[in-house]
Amino acid sequence: MKIISDIFKMQRTADDLRASGKKIALVPTMGYLHEGHLSLVDEAKKNADVVVLSIYVNPSQFAPHEDLSTYPRDFARDSKLAEARGVDIIFAPEDKVMYPEKELVFVETEEVSHILEGEFRPTHFKGVASVVAKLFNIVKPHVAVFGQKDAQQAFIIRRMVSDLNFDVSMIVAPIVREEDGLALSSRNVYLSEENRKEATVLYRSLNLAQQIVRDGERQFTRVRSEMLRHITAESQGKIDYISFVNPDTFTRVEEAGALKRVLALLAARFGRTRLIDNMFLEVSHK
Amino acid sequence: MKIISDIFKMQRTADDLRASGKKIALVPTMGYLHEGHLSLVDEAKKNADVVVLSIYVNPSQFAPHEDLSTYPRDFARDSKLAEARGVDIIFAPEDKVMYPEKELVFVETEEVSHILEGEFRPTHFKGVASVVAKLFNIVKPHVAVFGQKDAQQAFIIRRMVSDLNFDVSMIVAPIVREEDGLALSSRNVYLSEENRKEATVLYRSLNLAQQIVRDGERQFTRVRSEMLRHITAESQGKIDYISFVNPDTFTRVEEAGALKRVLALLAARFGRTRLIDNMFLEVSHK
Repeated sequence: MKIISDIFKMQRTADDLRASGKKIALVPTMGYLHEGHLSLVDEAKKNADVVVLSIYVNPSQFAPHEDLSTYPRDFARDSKLAEARGVDIIFAPEDKVMYPEKELVFVETEEVSHILEGEFRPTHFKGVASVVAKLFNIVKPHVAVFGQKDAQQAFIIRRMVSDLNFDVSMIVAPIVREEDGLALSSRNVYLSEENRKEATVLYRSLNLAQQIVRDGERQFTRVRSEMLRHITAESQGKIDYISFVNPDTFTRVEEAGALKRVLALLAARFGRTRLIDNMFLEVSHK
Repeated sequence: MKIISDIFKMQRTADDLRASGKKIALVPTMGYLHEGHLSLVDEAKKNADVVVLSIYVNPSQFAPHEDLSTYPRDFARDSKLAEARGVDIIFAPEDKVMYPEKELVFVETEEVSHILEGEFRPTHFKGVASVVAKLFNIVKPHVAVFGQKDAQQAFIIRRMVSDLNFDVSMIVAPIVREEDGLALSSRNVYLSEENRKEATVLYRSLNLAQQIVRDGERQFTRVRSEMLRHITAESQGKIDYISFVNPDTFTRVEEAGALKRVLALLAARFGRTRLIDNMFLEVSHK
C-alpha cells in the first residue's frame, strides 16, 4: 500500500494508472476508520482495480463552533486497517496542501443544502461538495463510493456529479450498524456509556416508522409524532429534526401520494454528541 | 475535423486520446468566431496534439434581460473557420444535453465575481465558472486557452482551477484588435456605423492611461478622470465602470504603491451594445 500526500504526485499516479487501463475507485473519508468505511472499501474493490482511500479532516465543512479540533484522528491505526482490507493507496494531504491560500471558488448547492443538516450546519455542504470536487480532480476516479449514513451528502454529491458532468460513477453503500442497531460513526466514541445505550433509540424509532408506514399510515406528520414520542419516552436525546423526503429529489414529503419509498432522516444530540441516521421506508399501496 | 454534440461520446473520445498519449487543448467559445478566437486556436495548437473547440452559447451566464436570444450564431461559418485553422474536434452540445434538468449545483466565486462585470451582471460569473467546470469534465483537457479580453473571467477560471484542483494548465492569450484598435468581439456586429467609429475611443483611453501612468501618475482616481473626460469628449459612449486592479488578486488599486503592473478595465455602452476592454499598465518606478 502506498501513502501519498502530494497533489501533483497523486494526479500523476492517477494518470499512469488510467494510461495502463486500470480502473480507479475513490473512498473519501475523514479517517478514524470503522467497519462502515471498510464496507465502502469492499464495495470499491468489487468495482475497480485500484482503491484509493482518502483520509482528510476537511476544515471547510466544519463551522467555527463545531468539533474540528477534537475530531478523532489515528493515522497509524487507519493505515493498518486500510492495508488489511486491501486499499492500494491512501491519499492523506495536509491542510496547507489542500488550501494553500484563502479559497475564492466553491461548489455550492441550492435549496437542498439549506434544509435538514444544512439548516443546522449552514456552510457544511458547501465545504463537503468543494472538497469532494477537489478530490475528484486529484484522484481522478472512475468510481466513487459514499455511505448512505450521510444520505443528504450522497444526494448532493450525486447532483454535483450530474450537474457538473464529473465523469465518475457514484456508488452509495448501505449503513453499517452495531449489533444493537446504532449506525457506525467516528463520533460514537464521544458518547458516554449511558448516552451510548440510549442512542439506539434512533434506529428503533426508524424501525417504528417503517412499521407504522407498512401498516398503512400515509400522513408523515403522524409518523413523526410517533417517532418523537418514542424517542422522548426512551431517552434524553434532543431532536434537531425528523424529516421525510422523496429520495429522488430530496424535497419534503408530507403525504405518501404515489411514492413507493420515502426516506426518513433524523438528527439528535446525546450530551454534546450529535448523531444522524436514516432509513428508506417502503410505502404500502394496498 | 470531427463534430461531437454528445457528452458521453466526448468523454470517451477524450479518454481514448489520453490513453494514446495525446495532449488535449480546449478552447471554449460561444461561437460566431473571429480572429480573437482563432488566435486562441493557434495558441492551443502550439501547446497540445489535439485541439477541441467548444461552441456553446451558455444560457446560465446571461441574465433574463440580456442578449441570449439575439446573440449572433452561425455554425456553418464557425465550422469552416475552425477547420481551416486546424481545429481537430468541435464540441457543440445542445441545451437539453448540457442542462437536462434544473441545476442545483454551481461553481461560485466569492468577492471577485461581484465587482466590475459582476456588479452589472450579478449571476454572470456563476454561469461562466459552472459551464467551464462542465466543459473541463467533458473534454478533459490538459490545457485550456482563454482570452485576455475577458480579463475577469480569465482570473476567475484561473482561481477555479487552483481552488478546485482541476488538472488543467491555463493559457491566457492577448487581446486581438482591429486595425483601429477596437478589441474584437462577437458583439461588435451589433454596432451602428457611427457607434463602431466611436467605440475606438475605449482603446485610445486605455493608451492615454498608459501614457499618464508612464509619465509618473500614481493616483488612479486621477487616471480615471482623464479617461472619463477623454471618452465623454469623443463619443456618446456611456461608461459602466473604469477600474484598476492588482492583476494577481483582482483587488481594486487606488495608488500604485510597489505594484509594477496594474490592470485597467472598462465597460461602456454604445447604443444598446455593451463593450469591454482592458490593458496592463506598466507603472513607472523611477
